[in-house]
Amino acid sequence: AVRLRVREALGAREPAGEVKVQGWVRSVRSQKEVLFLHINDGSSLENLQVVADPSLENRDLTFGSAVEVQGKLVKSPHRMQNMELKAETIRVVGPCDAWSFPLKMKKRHPLQYVRQFPHLRCRSNTLGSLLRIRSEATAAIHSFFQDNGYVHIHTPIITSNDCEGAGELFQIVMSNEARESAEKTHFFNVPAFLTVSGQLHLEVMAGAFTHVFTFGPTFRAENSQSRRHLAEFYMVEAELSFTESLQDIMQVMEDLFKTVTSTVFSKCPRDVELFHKNIASAQKVINVTGRSCNPVIISYNEAVEILKQASQTFTFKPEWGCDLQTEHENYLVKHCGEVPVFVINYPYDLKPFYMRDNEDGPQHTVAAVDLLVPGIGELCGGSLREERLPFLESRLQRLGLADAYQWYLDLRKFGSVPHGGFGMGFERYLQYILGVDNIKDVIPFPRFSHSCLL
Amino acid sequence: AVRLRVREALGAREPAGEVKVQGWVRSVRSQKEVLFLHINDGSSLENLQVVADPSLENRDLTFGSAVEVQGKLVKSPHRMQNMELKAETIRVVGPCDAWSFPLKMKKRHPLQYVRQFPHLRCRSNTLGSLLRIRSEATAAIHSFFQDNGYVHIHTPIITSNDCEGAGELFQIVMSNEARESAEKTHFFNVPAFLTVSGQLHLEVMAGAFTHVFTFGPTFRAENSQSRRHLAEFYMVEAELSFTESLQDIMQVMEDLFKTVTSTVFSKCPRDVELFHKNIASAQKVINVTGRSCNPVIISYNEAVEILKQASQTFTFKPEWGCDLQTEHENYLVKHCGEVPVFVINYPYDLKPFYMRDNEDGPQHTVAAVDLLVPGIGELCGGSLREERLPFLESRLQRLGLADAYQWYLDLRKFGSVPHGGFGMGFERYLQYILGVDNIKDVIPFPRFSHSCLL
Repeated sequence: AVRLRVREALGAREPAGEVKVQGWVRSVRSQKEVLFLHINDGSSLENLQVVADPSLENRDLTFGSAVEVQGKLVKSPHRMQNMELKAETIRVVGPCDAWSFPLKMKKRHPLQYVRQFPHLRCRSNTLGSLLRIRSEATAAIHSFFQDNGYVHIHTPIITSNDCEGAGELFQIVMSNEARESAEKTHFFNVPAFLTVSGQLHLEVMAGAFTHVFTFGPTFRAENSQSRRHLAEFYMVEAELSFTESLQDIMQVMEDLFKTVTSTVFSKCPRDVELFHKNIASAQKVINVTGRSCNPVIISYNEAVEILKQASQTFTFKPEWGCDLQTEHENYLVKHCGEVPVFVINYPYDLKPFYMRDNEDGPQHTVAAVDLLVPGIGELCGGSLREERLPFLESRLQRLGLADAYQWYLDLRKFGSVPHGGFGMGFERYLQYILGVDNIKDVIPFPRFSHSCLL
Repeated sequence: AVRLRVREALGAREPAGEVKVQGWVRSVRSQKEVLFLHINDGSSLENLQVVADPSLENRDLTFGSAVEVQGKLVKSPHRMQNMELKAETIRVVGPCDAWSFPLKMKKRHPLQYVRQFPHLRCRSNTLGSLLRIRSEATAAIHSFFQDNGYVHIHTPIITSNDCEGAGELFQIVMSNEARESAEKTHFFNVPAFLTVSGQLHLEVMAGAFTHVFTFGPTFRAENSQSRRHLAEFYMVEAELSFTESLQDIMQVMEDLFKTVTSTVFSKCPRDVELFHKNIASAQKVINVTGRSCNPVIISYNEAVEILKQASQTFTFKPEWGCDLQTEHENYLVKHCGEVPVFVINYPYDLKPFYMRDNEDGPQHTVAAVDLLVPGIGELCGGSLREERLPFLESRLQRLGLADAYQWYLDLRKFGSVPHGGFGMGFERYLQYILGVDNIKDVIPFPRFSHSCLL
């Protein structure tokens, strides 16, 4: 018998004799003259209907059990499905104790409920669809950059750069056993941390390959239980040499977003539909690929003016020179018509040392850009980088970082070029296109303050 | 002017007026009547030749400087190159202090030398080619699995499973500053570690999607300076449900290896050639995709017999029940004719709890497989997993791990299926196909005992 995945069986053009399908039972309906099963193997949201003689019924044939069904693939008389499997034999490969199994037949479990079972929730329809979408989005991101001539770089996870965002770093030490067998405190001779961004390492590579990207885990020891924060999350980051304007950076962000989203929507239409119908129903689902999502560009200065003129009272009074708070971001997105909003040119003193000086005092800004989107807030952040040695050198000296960043200054001594880049939070991206409220529901194994299950 | 990457310019079919090429100078040759430049932008190993009037010469036009050249793309009179750029303007975007720049014009720097400059070595020909190959191999691995119906899973980097390979774990703590602002020792409430393998998490997912894979960083706090070990390295791991024989696992390993290698060789022929000609020259370059690499399969029992009958004397005497040492692996590969060798069915007591019991005493084995390759040793390791609840439960109980792995036992209570999987070390894979002796030369930013640069 030819082994078929459920997806292949459902998509078959012709009936076929002697096929074998393996998967898990999603429903059992026993009638007097016929036994119906629905089988799922994770290759699609849709189940394969199995039609069998009631004599094949078996007490182990329960919701959640693993089965192998052999039989003939035939055209289904039902309008909603193409093919069904007429079973000749049904073998229960692994039974399932339905009583203690936390998922129940034909029940739509809330995301919050299945979150308690990180080892089983992937068997629910919602997480199944989510993880297939996540997989397709991952592939689409790699393809987007490879197709556009970017070199993929594995930027390091462990780094000795500790100067950026210092308070929120995880540090790496040897475990007790490893420490006992060593005769030193630091495995690496220096304190080592989990990366918060691959940017500086990407800048190294942009000096050789012009266009580079990375897509990997990043970390924050942030004591937050918010629906938008994780201690371990994924970031897509790109860096482009010979780039002189923020416009170029924003264009890549927009192209990335639109290309990946339309690929995902066309490759997993049913999985995406599940979210847009069942999960995001409360909030308006934005046509994220259509014209209605063409982004607006405003400067930080304009943003502050808009906020100052708002009738709404904010917890944090909007003031030039202060960071935009979540409440401000939400207001700006609403003000612009619930579309993505690029905010550009932030105050010099708010931003890290590597951002390019706009030399525009007295309201001194750098060439930074954040992309705010409805329901999420900040989705991407980027900037032009300071490529001019004297500017960078004096800024690092003022911060007392010139020694630590000698290697970074080297990049400006040897064939420096105007360049810039950005990062996009992958989980926030998934939240946005699918309308998922809590970030813990768009990653296979969420890690956050007080929680590291499995 | 149309902006072209060097690769595009070199591959152009037709001459073109008014193009712009940006990159870094790889050579300058000033003759009486003509100025020759070679420009590289990392899009290919080959440089673009620029031909200019000597009046465009400029003292900043040195090796390593960044330039923007405008002109006409014309057919080259040289047999070795298709196109060259007749320059109308040459602008030095960023000069390069040739004196202090550690790379020198037209010099082939040894890998060991450039390793001292992790922020600049990517501009050497060898590391340039290596990182382009690494990027193509990464894409090819994703494509192989996606094309074969596997779902990609981001298995967690931070994990609370500390039982496997305990001595070599990195532990994660809050950095000083983060710790001060928190009122507890453990950010996650429990001790947390850097992952050594995504396998157990992939098994969770194989119970929903049947075929899954991951490709991410893994970690060992191993105090080794060997040419085959890193503290941070990348692993490709796959897990397959409804798999009852090691043969199936070995077939996937072989298909993965052959497909990815032939993709890389056909996509970056010049980059691969650089390694096979200049780097691997000392050792015989194996035809890694041809028939000559068809692997041999031997059992651990046979392996021990072969070693016992060897005329060679080993530092570690071969004995049934002992681990195969590097010297043993080398001998076995040589004995089999310098081809890849699968060794299967290892002693039960040598292997971790999750491997499937072969029930074959008195020389009790589990269904494990290692793939040994010439010059490298172990490239892949895999096994069938113990899917039978009573076997797994009693083994975990004997190890005192039953409580910690309750979730893992759950996977055997709810629709358990025969399954198996494997992992392949990505850096060792690159070492093998390219003939690179030291693992530090096939990763962008190597991390190992005493070293965490940048």
